Amino acid sequence: MRRLSLYLRVLQEADALGVETISSEELARRGGTTSAQVRKDLSLFGSFGKRGLGYSVHELLGAVREILGLDRSWRVALIGAGKIGAALFSYRDFQRRGFHIRAVFDADVSKIGEVWGDLIVRSDAEIERILTDEAIDIVILAVPAEVAQAVVDRVARTGVRAVLNFAPVKLRVGDGIALRNVDMVLELEGLSFALNTR
Amino acid sequence: MRRLSLYLRVLQEADALGVETISSEELARRGGTTSAQVRKDLSLFGSFGKRGLGYSVHELLGAVREILGLDRSWRVALIGAGKIGAALFSYRDFQRRGFHIRAVFDADVSKIGEVWGDLIVRSDAEIERILTDEAIDIVILAVPAEVAQAVVDRVARTGVRAVLNFAPVKLRVGDGIALRNVDMVLELEGLSFALNTR
Repeated sequence: MRRLSLYLRVLQEADALGVETISSEELARRGGTTSAQVRKDLSLFGSFGKRGLGYSVHELLGAVREILGLDRSWRVALIGAGKIGAALFSYRDFQRRGFHIRAVFDADVSKIGEVWGDLIVRSDAEIERILTDEAIDIVILAVPAEVAQAVVDRVARTGVRAVLNFAPVKLRVGDGIALRNVDMVLELEGLSFALNTR
Repeated sequence: MRRLSLYLRVLQEADALGVETISSEELARRGGTTSAQVRKDLSLFGSFGKRGLGYSVHELLGAVREILGLDRSWRVALIGAGKIGAALFSYRDFQRRGFHIRAVFDADVSKIGEVWGDLIVRSDAEIERILTDEAIDIVILAVPAEVAQAVVDRVARTGVRAVLNFAPVKLRVGDGIALRNVDMVLELEGLSFALNTR
């Protein structure tokens, strides 16, 4: 899946530059893998490309977008309207890729009622009702670590099946939920470890 | 390394609750691994814990912090003073773990000169001089994808050896540089893929 996301970026750049065909070697080089791996990855999803001619950028771009579920738009709710939440809300790369924020929640009474774009920040007491009413596909969690598990438990009970967690804590969710973590502190600790052990 | 970061969190929580000893089973459960793995990981760094008694939380916390390089503070520069940069600048978990932002840069003349805490946003033309003068250890890149490679090339030439990249692009750096990526779009695409293939 990660390699598909990388191929997608290479293809988007190539498409923006007006490039019409691309070789598996070029995809491999830019994606940090081998051309054999590229051919294997793409063959799993159908028959693309012609031997010696490379892949049609336009055709392959469409196919990869479809495989990744990016040919449709996803309804996203953001829980946590703090600084990280605000940065995510205005992050245009999310919108551009079809992730549309349809609801924002916070527990802080001073935040509730704020106008964010065409949304109003709602009380966290309304999470269950609004996630259901708005048919939310994906929840972005940008809440403090201490409350993240309790919030994700509530989200799980609404039937949402995908969560992107920004709280620096390892969450436990059932098998039916896809969970991804963006853990900035963990990455900085990785750098600290690398510098420290040199 | 990732497991060490997870153990660190469990130990910090235990310490905050006044817990004095912790078993390898408990560390394993919370860190999502096995107690044999915990014992193996920790044995690499010296001899901790007593059979049947568990580990001293205080002692192990100090040791893990030292291994991760978190017993010292790191001098960090933030390149990119947009929304993501601003959110990172005010992210208290960075400071709390010894990552201190000492310089902020932007290419936008309307941002240069802004006062952020006790810093002034500097022109990106000053990157080389200030990274050197301030003896920066770690650079956080929060710039648009299109310019990220050019900026990281400049950073690399100053001798900085650790980069945390938030731009949604795969950067190429030399072997001497530790590079970590926080790629929010990639994680969302992972969720989209998971929802799409169910």
